[in-house]
Amino acid sequence: MTRVGIVGVSGYSGLIALKLLLKHPDVRLTYVSANTTTGKVGEIWPQLFGQTKLECVKFDAAEAAQKCDLVFLAVPHKISMEIAPLLLKKGLKVIDLSGDYRLKNTRLYKQWYGTDHIDPLNLKYAIYGLPELFRVKIKKASFIANPGCYPTAALLGLAPVVSIYTPLIEQIVIDAKSGVSGAGKKASIDLTFCEVNESFKAYKVLQHQHSPEIETYLKKISAGSEFDFNFVAHLLPINQGILETIYVHLKEKISLSELHKIYKRFYHSDTFVRVLELGTQPELKNVVNTNFCDIGMAQSANGKLLVITSVIDNLYKGAASQAVQNMNIICGFNETIGIL
Amino acid sequence: MTRVGIVGVSGYSGLIALKLLLKHPDVRLTYVSANTTTGKVGEIWPQLFGQTKLECVKFDAAEAAQKCDLVFLAVPHKISMEIAPLLLKKGLKVIDLSGDYRLKNTRLYKQWYGTDHIDPLNLKYAIYGLPELFRVKIKKASFIANPGCYPTAALLGLAPVVSIYTPLIEQIVIDAKSGVSGAGKKASIDLTFCEVNESFKAYKVLQHQHSPEIETYLKKISAGSEFDFNFVAHLLPINQGILETIYVHLKEKISLSELHKIYKRFYHSDTFVRVLELGTQPELKNVVNTNFCDIGMAQSANGKLLVITSVIDNLYKGAASQAVQNMNIICGFNETIGIL
Amino acid sequence: MTRVGIVGVSGYSGLIALKLLLKHPDVRLTYVSANTTTGKVGEIWPQLFGQTKLECVKFDAAEAAQKCDLVFLAVPHKISMEIAPLLLKKGLKVIDLSGDYRLKNTRLYKQWYGTDHIDPLNLKYAIYGLPELFRVKIKKASFIANPGCYPTAALLGLAPVVSIYTPLIEQIVIDAKSGVSGAGKKASIDLTFCEVNESFKAYKVLQHQHSPEIETYLKKISAGSEFDFNFVAHLLPINQGILETIYVHLKEKISLSELHKIYKRFYHSDTFVRVLELGTQPELKNVVNTNFCDIGMAQSANGKLLVITSVIDNLYKGAASQAVQNMNIICGFNETIGIL
Amino acid sequence: MTRVGIVGVSGYSGLIALKLLLKHPDVRLTYVSANTTTGKVGEIWPQLFGQTKLECVKFDAAEAAQKCDLVFLAVPHKISMEIAPLLLKKGLKVIDLSGDYRLKNTRLYKQWYGTDHIDPLNLKYAIYGLPELFRVKIKKASFIANPGCYPTAALLGLAPVVSIYTPLIEQIVIDAKSGVSGAGKKASIDLTFCEVNESFKAYKVLQHQHSPEIETYLKKISAGSEFDFNFVAHLLPINQGILETIYVHLKEKISLSELHKIYKRFYHSDTFVRVLELGTQPELKNVVNTNFCDIGMAQSANGKLLVITSVIDNLYKGAASQAVQNMNIICGFNETIGIL
Repeated sequence: MTRVGIVGVSGYSGLIALKLLLKHPDVRLTYVSANTTTGKVGEIWPQLFGQTKLECVKFDAAEAAQKCDLVFLAVPHKISMEIAPLLLKKGLKVIDLSGDYRLKNTRLYKQWYGTDHIDPLNLKYAIYGLPELFRVKIKKASFIANPGCYPTAALLGLAPVVSIYTPLIEQIVIDAKSGVSGAGKKASIDLTFCEVNESFKAYKVLQHQHSPEIETYLKKISAGSEFDFNFVAHLLPINQGILETIYVHLKEKISLSELHKIYKRFYHSDTFVRVLELGTQPELKNVVNTNFCDIGMAQSANGKLLVITSVIDNLYKGAASQAVQNMNIICGFNETIGIL
Repeated sequence: MTRVGIVGVSGYSGLIALKLLLKHPDVRLTYVSANTTTGKVGEIWPQLFGQTKLECVKFDAAEAAQKCDLVFLAVPHKISMEIAPLLLKKGLKVIDLSGDYRLKNTRLYKQWYGTDHIDPLNLKYAIYGLPELFRVKIKKASFIANPGCYPTAALLGLAPVVSIYTPLIEQIVIDAKSGVSGAGKKASIDLTFCEVNESFKAYKVLQHQHSPEIETYLKKISAGSEFDFNFVAHLLPINQGILETIYVHLKEKISLSELHKIYKRFYHSDTFVRVLELGTQPELKNVVNTNFCDIGMAQSANGKLLVITSVIDNLYKGAASQAVQNMNIICGFNETIGIL
Repeated sequence: MTRVGIVGVSGYSGLIALKLLLKHPDVRLTYVSANTTTGKVGEIWPQLFGQTKLECVKFDAAEAAQKCDLVFLAVPHKISMEIAPLLLKKGLKVIDLSGDYRLKNTRLYKQWYGTDHIDPLNLKYAIYGLPELFRVKIKKASFIANPGCYPTAALLGLAPVVSIYTPLIEQIVIDAKSGVSGAGKKASIDLTFCEVNESFKAYKVLQHQHSPEIETYLKKISAGSEFDFNFVAHLLPINQGILETIYVHLKEKISLSELHKIYKRFYHSDTFVRVLELGTQPELKNVVNTNFCDIGMAQSANGKLLVITSVIDNLYKGAASQAVQNMNIICGFNETIGIL
Repeated sequence: MTRVGIVGVSGYSGLIALKLLLKHPDVRLTYVSANTTTGKVGEIWPQLFGQTKLECVKFDAAEAAQKCDLVFLAVPHKISMEIAPLLLKKGLKVIDLSGDYRLKNTRLYKQWYGTDHIDPLNLKYAIYGLPELFRVKIKKASFIANPGCYPTAALLGLAPVVSIYTPLIEQIVIDAKSGVSGAGKKASIDLTFCEVNESFKAYKVLQHQHSPEIETYLKKISAGSEFDFNFVAHLLPINQGILETIYVHLKEKISLSELHKIYKRFYHSDTFVRVLELGTQPELKNVVNTNFCDIGMAQSANGKLLVITSVIDNLYKGAASQAVQNMNIICGFNETIGIL
């Protein structure tokens, strides 16, 4: 029985990881910690009242190493790169849900995260944990950079068209909308109910730190081809879920039904990506609380604009359940166990 | 033209007062201040962008006194009783939206607000500004304690039955539900969108500070008669609005149609209280953004339990528009001007 | 492997039953039908797209009997009592989620449901499926009347105090609030988003059909003792969840800490009822999408008013997951399997 | 005093028109009618209970003509073109809120609205009532085609850049998000609370009937220049409000601060269009229940992609208050009276 731990259990991703791992048949959750919150897990999260005897403790690398074989880091960026090296050095497997190990270029990291990267060594070895695209590498990895929520929906929505039609693509614009849990659990007037409810806005327009992450991995799957890429984020007045409307501008018309077949084939053996029938659009409610990514598509009259719509639950496929999917792969479990 | 000011313009009640007073034909808004926020009103509240040149300044009693004839205090309790005496001393009229001057008994104040009352002198002279019940006194007042949101809905819902059927009443239980703006504008995890949305809870059960306020003024209109009174508050996942379901336990059956006539007659000349037809229940959406209080009623089969339902907008009739109503009365304006 | 079917799969309770039974390790879902909707389950409910090959067919008793050992009826009342006898006659076990078999008194049924009961024979044999109160009888039953959503929260919230302090109880008032899914899935202007969102109202005040159901089973557990009972329902602008604030008026003071111990003891071996610590109030979000019922309590200063708060998810513990819990008991499975 | 009437008072736009016209100081509301709903206005819309003695009657052209000088048609398309000619023939001024008179090309109308246009004569004379762009023509008009909600936000957001930088524009994509009231008041499962709440989806992707309307008037202000145009609509789980994120792809870089100045200048004398400061993004909550359109802008690093964000309240600036604005212009009232 693999012994697993979670660091950062008081945030929303930590909670979902907690819920999934408590029920996972192949692992035992042996260690949970958080930065400022300690005490009984059933008091920190009353929905788990009576469901576990686990105590949340202050993080200690030695204790974590002794109690766990694998650790999930559900802490904010900057903190991950302080903790990860300690655990990796002790031979643990680590799945990091923060943004610290996703951008391989430290200059880019500094530009978007506003701080120097302090662990460039492990940065090299971290594998980007998007199973549908990089499963082979993940299988052999012991350190995973779990993808961001926006990048997960973007890359799954774009992978087939970008990898196959690369030379035809002129530019890509992503209009992304996310529920409020994407901002994390923190006391901020901007996140209070009355400020968010019955409203809607764009934020970090063309300046979101997930933009270079998407671009980095798009380039990987497009064999380095060049196209313009832009990303705009919006805040939806709902708890969970991301929908991205992806505009792919093409140099020439392609066949939509052909494209649809390509998508179906591309994800043929991927349980968690569902390519909807043509004429059907994905809806957030169909993926909330699941590890699914649903994808729809349409085309302009002249055939030169593709509109791909991609939906996930930001806390599940966009964070915690994808992290568990990565664990399943690394540990040789059935990939869908505990998250289907 | 009466010159008015608002102290505490960065909170939700302050915003509504601001919006109402900017459009009020009989007054000129000459002064706005807040504690920590300063700057252009159109930047503090982007919905007013371009609508006013007013600047929000740090509160200064001398400046307020020089610029205003009447001041609204939309600050938290404890702060009101520091500010009010300064303005009253300079001869200004003051309408205080906080809880500081509603409980006449300083011992009771300390018990429920957790601090000593530092202005017992003015406390004596403050008039409780519920126009439908105390209009005559308000007319001559220069210092108004504007009622709390829960008490407004409760007292309007109960006044007719309590004043007329007092000896028959055994006990009263109020099950109150309020939108989130009732908690004010502040950074708190408990008020964040994800914590409140799609949820519901009771809070301060039997221990809400509005409970003694309701009891105090119920006693006033019931000629001192004795009955048990209890109050439970709940948090609704909506922005604005209060609905109170009021259970009046009677010693003997009364006629509902008779009671309904009494209510209609009681509020006959009150524009802002609407007694609905029997068989109709009030809904929050019908009073949101208005100064109305809608009232419905029903009766148990044995006639000994009355169920009165009373709805208001907590920021309007429960705070800012009622404050303007009080101003209208004090200043001799048409009572409904600017708020109908 | 027990073969189970669902009749009425196009409604919300049907959906939850579907999701739970598809994953239940001890049964095989072999038959799903609905009245007007037919076709692939993954098209009727796109969230199940690709998850099952089941086809929803028009109901046929012979086919159901051939394919199933046990059938869930998730159809509206009036339809249940047409279908249930057909299935029972063929020897199937039946768990009925409608209101048709909960009131044993056919006169009462007619009064509250507005129609004659057409299956008085089976009505006699139906066992009220509230496991925490009637587990022993359920174990031997082959026909279950699954409790209503409001009654589930009410009876679990009241059972300990009513069964132990019966003679002290003078009257009980329940102020109940339910999410919109309680009204079912139907095209009605009153249920449209814009009519419900950001609003709140009482409905069927003192006239809800769940009121006699609660009263019936309260009497059962209180040994026939007499007290006044009243029930008021409200519509919460959320998808799922019921919170009931239960006012128990006592003839004399009792000890709250004593009562709390009684509740803890009463539900000691019941996994799904969680009695919260004194001072803590239950919140809907902690039980949504689960089979839990969370209970809190408080007491007035004079000790003669108890305020019990009870929360459940109306579609889970208030309908489908409780139905599965009943199935688990009837079939001799682990009571919590598939629903914890 | 101009006598005005509303046909179609039972829908959401009708309600807002009703509320605005009841308080408008320069007109008297003398006639309200609807198709299927009749009776007291205060019963059809309980929020107006006690506020008006108006009765809603079945539509009769002769009666309307006798009682009114100007009529608002807040009926669905297809019905407008049956009613408008009757009223115009009798010399009334008509402001039509439906889509019937916006597309001048009857072939286009048939293509997008699925029916033949039956009033091509008046179609020629209808003036497109977007005051900020066509005020001069509106002033002399007696028949107004009030713009659609999506087109209002789109055209106001695009007018300055499209009219001044036309030759530089390669293509425009609008990603539009609307609250649920945009779908009207009707019984439909897709519009029920549980189907919409906590979800989000794209709909009528690249096939919305407002797309040709936007394109038609964009061409008008761009002097016929050619560029690709595409439009995707989404459904926001809120009551009111539209936010459009408008992507303008340019052939070469332009200066954002220059563009911002152009926008400020363009709308310099338009009270209801607010160009926000650079760095600020509009939010729905700042325009809800108002006639304002707030506009923000940003630019990609290479300067070739503009992102314009435009927000309005779909029922106000996108329908009823814009209709009143048109009335104010036609009748020679102050343009902002009754809607500021």
